[in-house]
Parts: sequence; C-alpha cells; structure tokens
Amino acid sequence: FETSPGAVRLYYLYNHWVMQATTYFFIFLNLSLVLFEEPAVYPLPFLATSLIEVLCLLVFSVRLMHFAKVTPRNVFWKDTKNICVMVAILMSLTDLAIFGALRIYNVRSVRWSRIVRPIFLINFAESRQIRRAFRSIRNTFPEITYVFLLFMFSVLMFSLMALKLFGERNLQTAEGLPYFTNYLEIVFDLYVLVTTANSPDVMMPAFDFSWWYALFFITYVIINTYIFMSVFLAVVYNNYRKHLKNEIRKLAYMKRRKMVEAFNLLKEEEGAEFVVREAQWKQLVKLVAPDISNSHRELLLHISDDEQKGFIDKKSFVRLADLLNIQVITLKIRRHPLGRWMPRVYSSAASQFLRSMVRHRGFVWTYDVIILINAIFIALDEESPYISYAEWVFLALYIIEILLKVYTYEPRTFFGKNQFWNWFDTLIIFAALTATILNTTLKSTTEYNSQQILDIVFILRVLRLIRIVDSIQRFRVIMNTLINIVPTMLTFGGLTLVVYYVFAIIGMELFQGKIQFFPANSNAPHALECGNPALKDSMFARGKYCKNNFNNFASSFIVLLELTVVNQCGFAKVTVQAAKLYFIAFHIVMVIIIVNIFVSFILEAFFVEYSLEKSEVETAIEQKIQELG
Amino acid sequence: FETSPGAVRLYYLYNHWVMQATTYFFIFLNLSLVLFEEPAVYPLPFLATSLIEVLCLLVFSVRLMHFAKVTPRNVFWKDTKNICVMVAILMSLTDLAIFGALRIYNVRSVRWSRIVRPIFLINFAESRQIRRAFRSIRNTFPEITYVFLLFMFSVLMFSLMALKLFGERNLQTAEGLPYFTNYLEIVFDLYVLVTTANSPDVMMPAFDFSWWYALFFITYVIINTYIFMSVFLAVVYNNYRKHLKNEIRKLAYMKRRKMVEAFNLLKEEEGAEFVVREAQWKQLVKLVAPDISNSHRELLLHISDDEQKGFIDKKSFVRLADLLNIQVITLKIRRHPLGRWMPRVYSSAASQFLRSMVRHRGFVWTYDVIILINAIFIALDEESPYISYAEWVFLALYIIEILLKVYTYEPRTFFGKNQFWNWFDTLIIFAALTATILNTTLKSTTEYNSQQILDIVFILRVLRLIRIVDSIQRFRVIMNTLINIVPTMLTFGGLTLVVYYVFAIIGMELFQGKIQFFPANSNAPHALECGNPALKDSMFARGKYCKNNFNNFASSFIVLLELTVVNQCGFAKVTVQAAKLYFIAFHIVMVIIIVNIFVSFILEAFFVEYSLEKSEVETAIEQKIQELG
Repeated sequence: FETSPGAVRLYYLYNHWVMQATTYFFIFLNLSLVLFEEPAVYPLPFLATSLIEVLCLLVFSVRLMHFAKVTPRNVFWKDTKNICVMVAILMSLTDLAIFGALRIYNVRSVRWSRIVRPIFLINFAESRQIRRAFRSIRNTFPEITYVFLLFMFSVLMFSLMALKLFGERNLQTAEGLPYFTNYLEIVFDLYVLVTTANSPDVMMPAFDFSWWYALFFITYVIINTYIFMSVFLAVVYNNYRKHLKNEIRKLAYMKRRKMVEAFNLLKEEEGAEFVVREAQWKQLVKLVAPDISNSHRELLLHISDDEQKGFIDKKSFVRLADLLNIQVITLKIRRHPLGRWMPRVYSSAASQFLRSMVRHRGFVWTYDVIILINAIFIALDEESPYISYAEWVFLALYIIEILLKVYTYEPRTFFGKNQFWNWFDTLIIFAALTATILNTTLKSTTEYNSQQILDIVFILRVLRLIRIVDSIQRFRVIMNTLINIVPTMLTFGGLTLVVYYVFAIIGMELFQGKIQFFPANSNAPHALECGNPALKDSMFARGKYCKNNFNNFASSFIVLLELTVVNQCGFAKVTVQAAKLYFIAFHIVMVIIIVNIFVSFILEAFFVEYSLEKSEVETAIEQKIQELG
Repeated sequence: FETSPGAVRLYYLYNHWVMQATTYFFIFLNLSLVLFEEPAVYPLPFLATSLIEVLCLLVFSVRLMHFAKVTPRNVFWKDTKNICVMVAILMSLTDLAIFGALRIYNVRSVRWSRIVRPIFLINFAESRQIRRAFRSIRNTFPEITYVFLLFMFSVLMFSLMALKLFGERNLQTAEGLPYFTNYLEIVFDLYVLVTTANSPDVMMPAFDFSWWYALFFITYVIINTYIFMSVFLAVVYNNYRKHLKNEIRKLAYMKRRKMVEAFNLLKEEEGAEFVVREAQWKQLVKLVAPDISNSHRELLLHISDDEQKGFIDKKSFVRLADLLNIQVITLKIRRHPLGRWMPRVYSSAASQFLRSMVRHRGFVWTYDVIILINAIFIALDEESPYISYAEWVFLALYIIEILLKVYTYEPRTFFGKNQFWNWFDTLIIFAALTATILNTTLKSTTEYNSQQILDIVFILRVLRLIRIVDSIQRFRVIMNTLINIVPTMLTFGGLTLVVYYVFAIIGMELFQGKIQFFPANSNAPHALECGNPALKDSMFARGKYCKNNFNNFASSFIVLLELTVVNQCGFAKVTVQAAKLYFIAFHIVMVIIIVNIFVSFILEAFFVEYSLEKSEVETAIEQKIQELG
C-alpha cells in the first residue's frame, strides 16, 4: 500500500460515500434491468435496456480500475473477486453482442449472461457481509454433502419400497392418474413429501386401500422430515457457530495488530518502556471519533491512564478500540429549550404539574387503554360516520401525547439514536395524519376515494397498535432482540436476492408462458386450465393457482417465495420431467442451506441475549464510572 | 426407608422385573381399550371392555398400595404422582359407573374419563423418562408464553390489516366462498398460514386482484413463520439445555452423596484417614457389577489404588461409579470354537487362505458391488422368472457372507453387544429367507399369493441395501449418532402417545361421524362429499381426504399425525367454528412445544458428537491402560 499523498487521496476518493452509493445504484440498476427486458413487467425497447446495461458495465469497469490503482498490483491480481468481476463484465458484453446480432436477423436466443449479474452485488468490496455469508455457505458444503447423500439414499430406499408395495395395485391419485408406478416420479413425490407440501395427498390412495400402508408414510416422515431435516439444521448451525468464532478471532487479531502498529508510530520512550503521551492520545481520539463528548473522552483517558501518569502504556493503548466501541450513554441533564427561552412559564406550577403528570405511570396506562379502544374501533365497520370521526379524535389524542412528551422530556433526548419507539411512534402518527388529510381532501374535491392511500391509512392505523407491546417489560426484551437483528437480516435479504435472482432467470427461461393467468370472467380457451390443456382437472388449476407463473420477473420472484415456504410444483406437469430437478435444486439451496443459516442466526442471537454477560472491558468502564462517582 | 429384612424383601419384590412388566402390560391394556370401545376399530361388548377396565384399575390400586408399603408414609402422601394416580382411578371408576347406569336406561353420555388414562403411563414410577420430559415442558412454559403472546399479537394485528385491506373487495376463494370478511376466520386462516398448510391458497385471491398484496403475505410469512417459529425453537432449545445441565448436575450430586454414604458404611481407620480395604472393595465390585471380567476388575483396582497400598481412600472410592460406567472393551482374543474342535482343519492352508480372504478389504467391496447389482434387480420388474431366481442367488450370497464371517471371526465377538450392523444383517437376511420360503410354499401348495408376506419380503429386500452405508466411514459416523439416539427417541414416542391419546379422544367426541369414507365405486348419497353435504365442492372432498376422519381411534391417530406435519383442517367446516380452537391447541402443544424439543434434542446430540471430547475419568483409565501396557 502506497502512502504518497496522491495515492492516499485516490484511496479516500475510492472510499468516499458518494462513490460507494453510485456503485450500489448501478448494481441495483443493472439487477433491475430484468424487469424491463423480455419477458418484461414494464416493457422497454431492447435498445434502451442494452444501452443501460452497457452503461452499468462501464461504471463497473471504471470502479474496478480505480480499485486497481489503489491496490498493489500483485494483491489485486491474486484476489478472486476482481477476476470474477472482470469475467462477469466480459461475459455480459459478449452475450449482449451475440444476442443483439442475432436479434437483427430475427433469431431468438437466450440471454444467459443475466444470471451472472448478482456477481457484481457479491463481489464489489462494499458488500463484505454478503461475501462472508457466501463463504460460510461454502464452508458448510462438505459436511452438508455427506448428510445430504445419506438423506438421498434414504429417500431412494423408501421410493424403492413404495414402488414394490404400491406399484402393482392399480391405485389412482385424486387427479385420476396412476399412483406410484414410475420410480423417478415416486422419488420426486417423496422428496416433496419431505417439504410437507403434498403431505396428506401423496398418502391418501395407499391409505384408502389399507390402514397399514399409513405406517410406511409415518416412518418416512419421522425419518426424513423430522430427523434428517434436524440433522441438516444441526450441521449448518454447528458450522455457523464455528465460522462465527473464527471470524471474531480473526477480527480481534487484526484489530490488535493494527493497534500495535499505530502504537509503534506514536510511541515515545519513557523510562524503561515505550508509551504514548496524553496530548497525542487526545488528538488521536479526537481524529478517530470526532463526535464523542469531552466528558466521554476524559472518562476514556481516566480508564486508559489508570494511575494518572500523563501517558498511556501499550496495553491500555491497544484496548482503545474496544473502549470506543462501547456505547456510553452520556446522560447529560440538558435543560429543556423551552426552559431556556421562557423560564417563567416553563417552571410555573401548572407546567410542573403537567410534566409530572406525563411522567406518571398512569399516563402510559391511559394511553394503553386508548390504544385498546382504538383497536376495537378499527375492527368495527368503517361505514358509519361516527367511526370515521372517531379516527380524527384518536389521531388528535396521539398527537397530543407526542407533544406532551416532547414538552416534558428534552427533545434531543426524546429523539435520541436509541429511542427506537419514539421515532416509530412519531413517524407512524405523522404519516397517518398526512395520509388521512390527503385522503379527505381528495374525497371532498374529486369525489374519488384513492384506494392506494386508503390502504396505506389502514396499515398505518393498525401499526399504531404495536405500541402497546412496549408497555410490558418482557415483551420489550423480545422486541428489542428482534429489532437488533434487523441489520443482519438485511444480509440475508441480499443473499436471498442473489439466489432468487439466479433461479428466477432460469425459471423464466424454462417455464415462461407455459401457464397463463386469466381474469375470473375470461372467455379465452383453457382459461380454467391456466391456458394449458395439460393442467385440465389438476389440483393446480382447481386451486386457482394460475397467477403462480414464471411469465415475468416479479411473478417468478413471488413463486420462488412460495416455493421457499412449501415446495409445491404444478409446473413440472407442463414441461419435461427433468424440470423437477429445478425445484429440488431450489429446495436444497434455499431451504436446506439458507433458511437453516437464518434459523441458526436467530438461535444464536437469542442465546446471546439470554446469557447477558458483560465483557471484560465493559466491566472496566463501569468500575471507573463508579469510582469517579 | 425401613431396613428390616421384610421391608427389603417387599422392596425387591416391588422392583422385580416381572412386577414392572405386569404393570406396563396393564397400562397398555388400559390404553388400548379405546380400540374396542365405541367408536371401535374392533367392537367388543360394553360389558367386556368395562370388566377389563375394572381389572386394570384394580391392578393399579394394588401396585399403588404395594408402593405405599415400601415408602415412608409422609413421603408417599407428599408425592403428587401418587395423588394423581389415585384421583385418576377414582375418576375412571365414577365415570364407568355413571356411564353404565345411564346405558341401562339407554341414555347416551360421554366417556370423559378416558382422557385421564395416560396419567397411569406418566405417573407410575417406571416411566421416569417421560415424567422428566413433562417437567421440562412445564419449565419451558412461562418463557414460551411470553413469546406466544407476542406472536398472537402479531397474528391479530395482521388479521386486522387483512380485514381492512381485503374485507370489502368482494373477493372469493377458490371454493367460491367470501374471502377475508370475518375477523375470526381471518385470524384462523393466518394462523394456519404459519404452519404453511394453506400456503399459496390463502394468498391467491388477493394476489389475483393485485401484485402488491403479495407483499402483505410475504411480510407475514417472514415475520411469523420464519422469525417467530425460530424464536420458539430458540426458547425451547435454550430451556432444554439449561434443564439438561441441571438434571446432570443433580444426578452427579446424588451419585456423589450415595457413594459417600457407602464409603462411611465400609470405612476403616488407617493412619490419619479413613479408607476401604482392598478385599472389601473387591467384594463390593463383585456384588454391584457381577458381569465384568476379572482382568477388568483388576484394572479398576489399579486405577483406584494408584500406589498399591492395599486400601482405597475416599476420593478414589467415590469415583468408582464413574469408572464402572465406562465401557472397557475387553479384547479377549478368544480362540475360534472351530479352532478348538478341529484344530487341524481350521488351521489348514485352505482355511487360512479363506480367512485372510474374508478379512481382506476386497471382500467388503465385492459385497458392496453385489448389493448394488441387487438394487438394480429389485428395481426391475418382478414378472420375469429369471429375476425371481436371481433373488434366490442373492439370498444365497448373503447367507454365505454371514457364514464366512462367522467362520473367520469368533462368533461371540461377531454377535457382540455393540455389533449393531452384524445383528441387523443377520436378522434381515434370515427374516427374508423365512418369508421367501413361506411365500414359495404357500404359492406352490395353495396357489394363493399372500399379499402381507409378499409386502414383508419386499421391505426386507430393500432394507438389505442399507448395509452399503456402513462401508463408508463418514456415513457410519452419522448413522451411529442416529442409532445412539434411538432410545431417547422412544421417550418422545411416549410423550407423543400421551398427547395424541388425549387429543384423539377429544377429537372423536367432537368430530365422530361427521365425515365418512366410501369406497371408490360407492352409490351412497353424498359419497363424493365424504357423506356430508357441507363439504360439497370443498378442496377437502376434491382431494379425496375422506378417510382422514375421527371415526375411530386408529384414524384419529393418523389424522393427528398429518396435523403434526401440516395443520390442514377441513373439519372445521362440518361442525361449529369453535372447533378450530382444537386444531390451534393441537398445533401449539405438538408442533410448537414437542417437535421443538425433539429438534433441540437432535441438535444437542449432534453437537455432542461433533465436539468429541473425552471426560476426565475416561482419560485416567486410558492412561492406566497405557501404563500397564
């Protein structure tokens, strides 16, 4: 790493938030192109989408070159993620060129390079979290593979038994098809049974034939659904914990090394040992953490320089990073701005009484009761005018509550960083107020009731009720844990996006147009069979699932979401049997691996919450605070 | 606890295995009565079942009195389990008397006392495991309740939103019913969505209406199915671990205390400290563990009396229980019995060659190939006579394999306690041989192909293939863990039995006769609607689920099993809406609590397997063995 001013400036520029935001913008622009390309949700001409794509690729190339400038050459070329990005750019360009050329001669080809687009999301340096998650998945692979093979062996064995037991009975499924006569179909049916999607259906013909055959399915479900799926969770969870420990250890080690390096740069000799002088230490802290208060900095100094010697030794210096990570809530007893501007009014008897009233527990209880009454009003019918008037009353009450609270507590404290619920309340109420006013104006001026705005008003009204959870201590603990894990859940969101993106594009190529959705009163041929005669009399058509199709990216996305929940698959009927592999692959990647990692993550988050142990450094700070009084 | 010879004899009698087996027999007899009582699988007259029930209750009373004799009075009356059993006996008798009396006057009443029958299974001293599991559930309750309330709050909120968003759109479900218009029905539908049973169905009408409403269901599924269900698992698992630790600690403490008591009885003074003499120690070990070999006992003595002083001090004595728990595989190089009976033949060159061949790896591989070929033959059609001849060839090959192995290895070692796979192989092969011979004889003598025997033959044939798993090291590790947890899984079997029993009896009272099963070509009215006009055009009837009913105990049991996998519930249609509570209650008890405990148990078992650490005592033994050579 060069340390010349030019290189450093280039490095700063590379890490500037505008540059990062631009990169992310183009990554998502590139990903969202799929909405506008054939088969499109909102069709755009091919020229437009391809121009945008070229633009995106250009931005990625520039970004990559910039990164090459700020990294030593050998490091840059050793890093697989850079190679990946370069290959992806080249592949996209080639594919685009071929597709465009063939298009001119009216030959339809497949835009296969679209599945490499998520690579940009994964491999740009900014999405370190997602890359780490992918690494974790890769590490889990060997372990999972063994269990998976054993699991597949069990499925194959049971399928063989099923073929022998039921194959020659001439049984029929509910759809009138032959039951359990083809080995591969049995394997697939039993695999789907593991996901519980076709749970009683697949068993019913055999069960109707004889009691005892139910035992076969019971054994199957116990072994494969309950035991094997738990073993998968165990393997993933175990690996997740191991991986987490390694990452933390590595991070701690890196941090320590960097701190030692910093110490070596700043150190001066003092007696027998090297130390950092207080003045320099203060300057450093000011530079690194500019937004902490003076008293907080003094506190840190007191802890680091325990015996007030005017300098800090190596051990205490290295601990600085940990110290800075701990949130010390600076309970500044700020005076209320109103108290400063009109002190007489603010500290008058009436004002004091008001404030003590707001601070009283009864205030919270009163509003809890109001929320409950509001819930009943919401559940009641909207038609009566009294109830829509009541809505205004409730809105007013909530606004008064917020105003009273701001009047009582200091506004900056009330809207502090950690005051999630205050923010939540205020946003919900003001959004509801805006939407309600907007709706009323629209109604009175244009006589037109905008459904979108009404929907939003409804949702906001109901969301208001969540507040009641905050009044009960035990609920608050659980809610806080849930809120704390939201940022990490976004990583899973990214991971899921990548997997869905790839599968949605493959799915569109495989199943596009095979199933169509017609409105309820359509006269089109085969409207009842989702436009495909192969689905006649199938449970798929009867259940009115026609909108579950792969005809564009948005519906593919929703179908994949449904497949994550239960792996139903009427699609295999409308195409070749091998397409079933697509569903099995999706189940393995999404449910067996990613959902299990997600569950592991939540398990771990709650275990940490339950074993509320304070770290060593935190205890040191607390001790010091107590000493200082 | 009295120590007079009479009392001790009485105590021994109480714990005699015949007495315990008798108690279990009558417990299961009492439980199985439900198969013969109205509504019966195999009907018996009321007089017969009630006589058997009285007999069972009599046995339980005698057993309880016996227990009262061997326990101090105050201990006996303080123990809730004895009170429970007494109350259960009284309730059963009262109910039986009332039911019998009313029956004479032809008044039909409900046999409500049948749900207390599992109490006998839980509360007799022999089923300590199940009782412990129930205690674990009880401990989890408070924690679970808070999460459950929060979860229900979330479901109620979403239902309210759904009512507001979809209630006035006049949408229809696939069955043509109004969609999301009744609040309580929405709550129920959304609760079922958590179990993923009605996954796409419940969403389709709103999704058909507009894209954006899918977002509502996606949010719902993420929050309630993925996050809340994982939180339930986290709470249950955390509690399970805590409970497990407590139990182990308590057991270790008890063991220690008992060992100290024993030491105090046997101790003699030796210098400054009390010790146990070697002779007495040996006598004790012989008494406590009569079936360990002399060399094993000598080894234990060497470990306990480290410096060969001829006596054992308190610390080493207390450790004895742990030492006895460790399985030392006494690798006696027993001579093969054939080697003793006809040494010349057995050690001849041909015999030696044969034995070295069997010991060779190639032997295992050859048989793996044979198994694979066999798998292909099984999958092929049964009709051709060549293939049924091939079956005889394979059977012969497997029998030769077992004979060769017994010839090579010492039979007692081959059929040792821990040789699970050898036992498995031999049993499967001989059962298959017997069944095949039986089938052939039946076929040749009566020209009649018994389907039951054929089914068993098929299953045995396929089970044979499992053997191949054992050849691969990694699979063997996983399989061994799975086999090790089988005994504990029986406890879960007991737990599940209790829950199913209670719910099946309630279900039979609620839903009996509402749904009927008719064979495919029946002419009965409403045969297509499962005998109930309310089910006309419902997905339940269309899916041919008619045999899923509560008309007798066996089918109730299977329906409950299906409900455990996915909570589908066409039943609510044929009776009052409140019956839905039955399904929710079952889901809470079975899926949220018991299945999660089961998953926790498997997770823990695999974590222990992955962190293969040897205990301190085991290391001590190993050290000693190495020292002794």
